[in-house]
Amino acid sequence: MEKKACLYEGKAKQIYKTDKDDVLWISYKDDATAFNGEKKETLRGKGRLNNEISSLIFSQLARQGVKSHFIERLSETEQLVRKVSIIPVEVVVRNVAAGSLVKRLGFSRGQQFSEPIVEFYYKDDELGDPLMNDAHIKAMGLASENDVQLMKEKALAVNDHLITMFEKIGVQLIDFKLEFGKDSAGQVLLADEISPDTCRLWDKQTGESLDKDLFRFQQGDLQEGYETILTRLGGQA
Amino acid sequence: MEKKACLYEGKAKQIYKTDKDDVLWISYKDDATAFNGEKKETLRGKGRLNNEISSLIFSQLARQGVKSHFIERLSETEQLVRKVSIIPVEVVVRNVAAGSLVKRLGFSRGQQFSEPIVEFYYKDDELGDPLMNDAHIKAMGLASENDVQLMKEKALAVNDHLITMFEKIGVQLIDFKLEFGKDSAGQVLLADEISPDTCRLWDKQTGESLDKDLFRFQQGDLQEGYETILTRLGGQA
Repeated sequence: MEKKACLYEGKAKQIYKTDKDDVLWISYKDDATAFNGEKKETLRGKGRLNNEISSLIFSQLARQGVKSHFIERLSETEQLVRKVSIIPVEVVVRNVAAGSLVKRLGFSRGQQFSEPIVEFYYKDDELGDPLMNDAHIKAMGLASENDVQLMKEKALAVNDHLITMFEKIGVQLIDFKLEFGKDSAGQVLLADEISPDTCRLWDKQTGESLDKDLFRFQQGDLQEGYETILTRLGGQA
Repeated sequence: MEKKACLYEGKAKQIYKTDKDDVLWISYKDDATAFNGEKKETLRGKGRLNNEISSLIFSQLARQGVKSHFIERLSETEQLVRKVSIIPVEVVVRNVAAGSLVKRLGFSRGQQFSEPIVEFYYKDDELGDPLMNDAHIKAMGLASENDVQLMKEKALAVNDHLITMFEKIGVQLIDFKLEFGKDSAGQVLLADEISPDTCRLWDKQTGESLDKDLFRFQQGDLQEGYETILTRLGGQA
């Protein structure tokens, strides 16, 4: 596979074309951003950690029957993925109250839900990724009713797999964000990444954050937290 | 019926007990508030206009089979209603983009939706009445899944009736807010009021607002707009 022109550079990744039409080359960057880009820093090794963790998780999900855009890990910071057209809706699954939910609706941080909560946010930096509901998605033509239902079901299935995966390594899955895309055949595939950048992960013993909250709220060393996740998942720190 | 002690005083109404356990006496006030109470004024006659309009609308809805808490109009500013326990969820139905939806999701003001959008907001002044979804309502124990579904269906039925009702008097129903409550038998009833305080109503000919936006954005004379609605509905200005 050959790396071609850069198609897009986001906050955390660069995306390149390859010599195959439906395959993209992803390169993870060391940049950390939070609060819609207001806080920004370069953290050495972060790109590698997210690429390694996301590759491990997507591989494991694939073995459990969850189809995603992930094809293979190429190097410490690179992977190949299937080209999809991203649905501009962030799908958030919450098992325990934390983050914006606490502020917005008055839940107590740490409150366990009896059933996971699925939320949709409009992926739009300018509008600050606002919360939306099924009817908004339909009215904006972002996805069909059927695709919204599919995303919800897939997100809940991923949640079940991830809870077990993290449970085994002594980590509680608080919440996480997924993105979905459509491939050229119109199939809805899990896309983007699953990493401590997109999950809230608390150590079961100590309760400490092992995710981007380390950076958001300067609670500790981001790389150390991410390395803990990587090594516990069986990767090389 | 006898008016007894005041149970509660809100932004726009006082609620009194009566000599019957399941009946309340509502008195409409002349106070206008907007932006979660930040803007406040006393507008002479507003209480009467809302009471007359809401009484007319609830009576007409009743004839169309929509059950509400409304029993009868008592005077220019007073009505009797069935006592319900209010579900703290504001149900908003939108036919055309306006207000917060334009700001939050980037719709163009005036954009007509092919299907009405139903939204839920948590009725909580301190939190600023935040948008929520079905899963939040369930997790917070505010209403059962079944009651959420019921509120959605009832709101859409009310929308159909109101669209026709306003269409006949040359007014376009842009959006409106409903509240529901449960009576002692556990029946979900439409409650609160339906008036230019809780609806966006645009004159079909001129496009001008005949609702609380007149006050919110100082677009014109609130009482004049509300009087137009009342007289066109067949009431006495």
